[in-house]
Order: sequence, then C-alpha cells, then structure tokens
Amino acid sequence: MTEITIPVGRDLRAEMRAAADAFRMERELQGTLFVRLLSSPGAGKTSLLQATAVRLRKDYNLAVLVGDIETDRDAQRLAPLAPTVQITTGGCCHLELPMVQHAFAQLLCPAGAKPFDLLFIEDVGNLVCPASYDLGEHLRVILLSTPEGDDKPGKYPKAFRTSQALVITKTDLLPFVPFNVEAAIADARRIQPLLQTLCVSAQSGEGIVPWCELLVARRRHLLASEESGRIEMNESS
Amino acid sequence: MTEITIPVGRDLRAEMRAAADAFRMERELQGTLFVRLLSSPGAGKTSLLQATAVRLRKDYNLAVLVGDIETDRDAQRLAPLAPTVQITTGGCCHLELPMVQHAFAQLLCPAGAKPFDLLFIEDVGNLVCPASYDLGEHLRVILLSTPEGDDKPGKYPKAFRTSQALVITKTDLLPFVPFNVEAAIADARRIQPLLQTLCVSAQSGEGIVPWCELLVARRRHLLASEESGRIEMNESS
Repeated sequence: MTEITIPVGRDLRAEMRAAADAFRMERELQGTLFVRLLSSPGAGKTSLLQATAVRLRKDYNLAVLVGDIETDRDAQRLAPLAPTVQITTGGCCHLELPMVQHAFAQLLCPAGAKPFDLLFIEDVGNLVCPASYDLGEHLRVILLSTPEGDDKPGKYPKAFRTSQALVITKTDLLPFVPFNVEAAIADARRIQPLLQTLCVSAQSGEGIVPWCELLVARRRHLLASEESGRIEMNESS
Repeated sequence: MTEITIPVGRDLRAEMRAAADAFRMERELQGTLFVRLLSSPGAGKTSLLQATAVRLRKDYNLAVLVGDIETDRDAQRLAPLAPTVQITTGGCCHLELPMVQHAFAQLLCPAGAKPFDLLFIEDVGNLVCPASYDLGEHLRVILLSTPEGDDKPGKYPKAFRTSQALVITKTDLLPFVPFNVEAAIADARRIQPLLQTLCVSAQSGEGIVPWCELLVARRRHLLASEESGRIEMNESS
C-alpha cells in the first residue's frame, strides 16, 4: 500500500473562470467576436461554418479553430475558406481553454498579429461534456439537427441552458423526419428562456442570411459595449 | 492550505473489469444475451429497440434498460413493449456498471426471478465517453445514422473499435443526405476489421428482420458456448 499526499486549497474552478474571462476580454479588446458551435456529432457544424465563411469572408476577417477527437477532416473542409487550425484531442471528449489558447497562437503566427473580426470554434461533437467548459467565447451556439429529433433539449439540458442561441439545422430534411420545430423550440426555451432561435439548411441555403446577420449584429453590439466601456473608463478617470 | 491523504495501491480498473466479467457471466448462465446500443444523440437507438421488441417479443422474453442524462422520454416509448427501467444519470455523460446492476435489480423485482432471453441497454447518447466503460454486455452495437455523415468512424474511433456490430440507421433518408454506405463501412472496418455490419430503417422496416436474426443467432451461439463450456467442465472434473 503506497501513500501519496496531495495538497488542496487552490480554487481551480475560479482560476479557470478567470482565465476564460481574460481570453474573452482580450478578444473583445481586439474587436473579435468569438463564437462557439456546440452539438452532437454530425449535426452540421462544419457545413454551417462553410456556408458562413462563403457569405462573410469578403467583408470580414474570419478564422476557425476546429476540435475533433481524431483526424483533421473538418479542418480540411474549412481551410480553403478561412485560416483554420485543427485541435485534435486524441481521445478527450471536450476542449479546454489551454488547447484553444495554443491553437489560437498558431493561427496568429503565419498571418501576423492582425486581429480577426470573427473567430469561430467548432467544438468536439458531443452534446454532454463540452457544455461544462468555458472556452472564453462571447457567443455559445447550440445546433440541433432535425433528424436527431425534437425531444433532445430536455434530454441534454446543460448544452441548451448554457447557450445564447439555438440553431436548428438540416431543415431541408423536415419533410422526411418526425421533427416539430415549435415543440423543439418550446422544449429548449423551458430550459433557457433567453435563447435566440434560428432555422437553417446549409444544403438549401435557407436561413444562412439571418444567421450571418445575427453574427454581424452580435459583433456590432460587442464593439459598441467595448467602446462605451472605454468612454465610461475615460469619464471616470 | 488544507492537506488530505489519499491511500493508493488498489487497481480499480482491474476491479471494474472483473465486476463487468462477473455480470456478463451471470447473464450467460441465465441464458440472457446482453446487448448494448451505443451512438450519438438521435441516431435511432430507441426506434430500433421499438422495432426489435415488436418483432421479437412474441417468441422471446425481452427487457430494456435505458440510459439518459435527464427525463424518462425513451423509457416511456419502450415500456409498452417490454419491461423497461430508465437510468437517469443526472448530468453524467456515461453509464457505469453499478448503475446497470441497480437498474437490473429493479427489472427483476416486479416480474419475479425469471431470466430474460434478451436484455438490451440503450446507452446515453454520446459517441465518445461511454465507449470507455464495460457494462458487462455480450454484444456492443454501434449505431451510425445516415444524416450524421459517413466520415464519423475515423473521427470517433474508440466507439467503433470496441464494438462487434455496426448498424447504419435511417437508411430511408439516403436519397436526401450525402452518405456513402460503402465509404462508412470501409472507414469503420479500417478501425475494427471484425465489425459485422447491417443497414436498417426503423421508419420503413428495412433491415429489421436481418437485425433480429443476428440477435437470435448471437443468443444461440452464447447458449451453445455456455453448454459446451459446461460439458468441458464436466469432462475435466
């Protein structure tokens, strides 16, 4: 029987929260809206990011971080559209902030230090574990694809409770699957009443314009609050 | 600064493996094939179990354990077809053997001690974490639904590597989604060459008969090996 002694007393969760807040604030100061996409495997995160990049990359400076257990298949799809760094967890079921910080540093190196307008992170496909980790994002978006079924919010509540927007994806499949959009939204809003909701199909293009407008509006709001924050600081100094 | 002392030295993983092996052997001795379904959220585990129960319950004594983070929505769908116990993890991303043992005991109590021919467990919808836990099953089945995309095996290898059968679900959606059945099977077999593969649609009924035949054949095989094991033991004694 071996004995080891472990010193406790540091509040690691508070340290992790502070580090995520610092990352969030750094992005805000650089004018970057940091958007995180969360969902089950195969709900359409990569396809939505492809459609988003196609629409926004002319007017906005975009970058993408992509989390996966194994392979760089998603990064290969996104790299032609925007600077992309793949984060491969090697078995781990979620991303943590240090992985994001490390990948973000790789993103900046080749392109110089020019800040991005929009930074996306596609999380590992997992509707459970990632929701417990703050990656320093400004906007957490939960995707629910129509073939998954409209009963999922109540069954996986944390991912919905901690998100600010719900995007129902693959609406082109609605004629072929038993999915009630109103029921899914009502179920999600029982968990998180403030959820902004949208329906999209990356296949048909439905909803991509309102989705991109939401992103642009959120970035404008971020810049305005950063600006007014600076004015307040100036006034009080 | 507080200090606590933790005694180490027990091989907990070996203890967990032994407990899973014991549960597996107990089921085998009772003539019960224990089948576990693993997949992403919304891949069709409950629908497949419904279709299976409709077909097999006349000739076989079935029971179902259903794992979910929250709600008993799946158990409500299955309870009219077979004795069902819901396991709600309350946030936990996977099931562990003690939860299964506890639920199994509840299943036996009201129905008496009569052993089941087939015991199913529907795991929490999560393509990552559950694959690391042995629940004492005889047959682990990984479900991949066509809308999830044919690139998933390589991205979530452990769930495919540790399974004995791959069931591609929602084949009724094949005309509407970019999914290549051959590519998905080839990707999965690169990870686990021994995977038995099947295509099903609980919606149209396609593939349900071969799936049920697979289950019946596996149970026959289990009983035969148990029988021959007993003969061998008799001969050597």
